[in-house]
Amino acid sequence: MVKTEHINVSSEENCDILDITAQLTDAVRKSHLMAGTVTIFCPGSTGGLTTIEYESGVITDLERVFEDLAPVDGDYRHHLRWGDDNGSAHVRAALVGPSITVPIVDGKLTLGTWQQVVFINFDTRPRLRQLVVQIMGE
Amino acid sequence: MVKTEHINVSSEENCDILDITAQLTDAVRKSHLMAGTVTIFCPGSTGGLTTIEYESGVITDLERVFEDLAPVDGDYRHHLRWGDDNGSAHVRAALVGPSITVPIVDGKLTLGTWQQVVFINFDTRPRLRQLVVQIMGE
Amino acid sequence: MVKTEHINVSSEENCDILDITAQLTDAVRKSHLMAGTVTIFCPGSTGGLTTIEYESGVITDLERVFEDLAPVDGDYRHHLRWGDDNGSAHVRAALVGPSITVPIVDGKLTLGTWQQVVFINFDTRPRLRQLVVQIMGE
Repeated sequence: MVKTEHINVSSEENCDILDITAQLTDAVRKSHLMAGTVTIFCPGSTGGLTTIEYESGVITDLERVFEDLAPVDGDYRHHLRWGDDNGSAHVRAALVGPSITVPIVDGKLTLGTWQQVVFINFDTRPRLRQLVVQIMGE
Repeated sequence: MVKTEHINVSSEENCDILDITAQLTDAVRKSHLMAGTVTIFCPGSTGGLTTIEYESGVITDLERVFEDLAPVDGDYRHHLRWGDDNGSAHVRAALVGPSITVPIVDGKLTLGTWQQVVFINFDTRPRLRQLVVQIMGE
Repeated sequence: MVKTEHINVSSEENCDILDITAQLTDAVRKSHLMAGTVTIFCPGSTGGLTTIEYESGVITDLERVFEDLAPVDGDYRHHLRWGDDNGSAHVRAALVGPSITVPIVDGKLTLGTWQQVVFINFDTRPRLRQLVVQIMGE
């Protein structure tokens, strides 16, 4: 069985890291599936999905590492090409990846106690995003 | 239902980034599945999968960040071990990951307008690769 | 059909990279599924999953790149927050991601010859972890 849900997020620019665990938990409960997987996918090339302990200190630490890897104010060929300014966003999103898959066991996500699912908007402007939540199983 | 397809790619050495969206779209259409997921997997430890806006500027930007992370001409223990020269490829591939999963909704991939699925050959020589395309759903 | 298995790992601190391919192969064989996918997930925000050629040289190379990206002895806001010392672990785990999905074709994982599935414990102390192995297909 396959159930499709969506999570709408309103995100700020330059590495806004949002905890979407509550919405995801709701979507899985609504599906009434007891065993399977859920894949959360960002349709767009400037956003990413991963898990982290959602605590403001770690969030700042992760932002700093992304800034080291691909600085927002760095030089990007992408900027020359389109007159755009979000080369950092494209590079960061490609590294993190656009999706994450979490098992469902006994009707629940198998997340650890201090582990949250986060959407990251790397774009250089605020973005509204509709994430796809694909729930599969029985 | 599960359908297995393959995508054959012919890739150049040292971070050749190839857009495989057209072949993937064909594989999903051929499967006639309307809802589910597709997992694209690289059997091999010097290749990776992700999504990006496939535009030559961004592609060059991503290559440069990989070169900063793990330079092709850097010193690697792997080279001492096997007399091999592709330590950079193994490290980069482990960071990006060997697979990606994309939802299928209404028979279509849920990619964004400017978002393409890419295979990256990190190896230091050209590689022919047969990617596994696993389509699951109903 | 969905089958849930677990892999128990006993890992050392600071980037212990463990080959779990044999346990994973066993779990897939026990499931008797011939076609589908297996998702391996780490419940916890200081561990990650990926694939690599499991060879001591490459393993050391990958550890060094993680140390460059997020040094164990670096300054982290997370440490100020909780008096904790594992900021590096959280950042690294978020970059690598908590799960990996591998296709099953003809009852077997589609791994390359020199490609192993690894769990990485990034935490600054030894950890026992119970990984979730979700096998789906027919």
